[in-house]
Amino acid sequence: MRTLGIHHLGLAVADLDAAVERYTRLVGAQVESTEELLDQGVHAASLRVGASRVELMAPLSDDSPVGRFLARRGPGMHHVAYAVPDIRAALGDLRSVGVTLIDDEPRHGLYGDVAFVHFESFDGVLTELVETPSA
Amino acid sequence: MRTLGIHHLGLAVADLDAAVERYTRLVGAQVESTEELLDQGVHAASLRVGASRVELMAPLSDDSPVGRFLARRGPGMHHVAYAVPDIRAALGDLRSVGVTLIDDEPRHGLYGDVAFVHFESFDGVLTELVETPSA
Repeated sequence: MRTLGIHHLGLAVADLDAAVERYTRLVGAQVESTEELLDQGVHAASLRVGASRVELMAPLSDDSPVGRFLARRGPGMHHVAYAVPDIRAALGDLRSVGVTLIDDEPRHGLYGDVAFVHFESFDGVLTELVETPSA
Repeated sequence: MRTLGIHHLGLAVADLDAAVERYTRLVGAQVESTEELLDQGVHAASLRVGASRVELMAPLSDDSPVGRFLARRGPGMHHVAYAVPDIRAALGDLRSVGVTLIDDEPRHGLYGDVAFVHFESFDGVLTELVETPSA
């Protein structure tokens, strides 16, 4: 799979507004967009941190995946996303070497076409692919 | 604190060689350097993944911080590092707003002068600063 680099780091937080304020104050982050992603059950904010991106996600309910993550592990790093030039090609490459995909097909995310890959294939790291053709 | 972006993502792994092989095969990572960091108790490898970096860390002993992390949580994301142009200025900025520093002074890391900041100040994320004057 050809990878352009880290697209963003996804953090699970309990209070989105408080976390946005903290990242703005401490590392000079700037809010790029916010969105409620109903199929993921999160209220998400995309922050620019210098040349990079951090996605803050607060759960819309306790029984959403991020709500259960927070209950089990507390706030912290939730996933890393890699930018790929062609997400269907990337999913095909991973499938061909036996990687367990969560999404067989791309779906809509905060950053357009995205797909998640099971953490067991990446040393415990929940991994997302984001199609970034122009990068 | 002025931040240039994410310098690298640090992952705790049980078997360094196996993890290097996996990241090389799955995301096209290229090994940039490896080093035993005795004060951190890890054998670390720096990988280039596209335009980004991933640091893989395996513990040198079970009672090192990363050894205890693995025993408690299993392999996964351990820390994120931000590139800063002046690490002493960044530490001063964080100290002035009450952030809890692990390192009051920079120390030697895989990437030169680095300092760690307590995870409680960053929504559960162990955060490292790396001085990157040329970035």
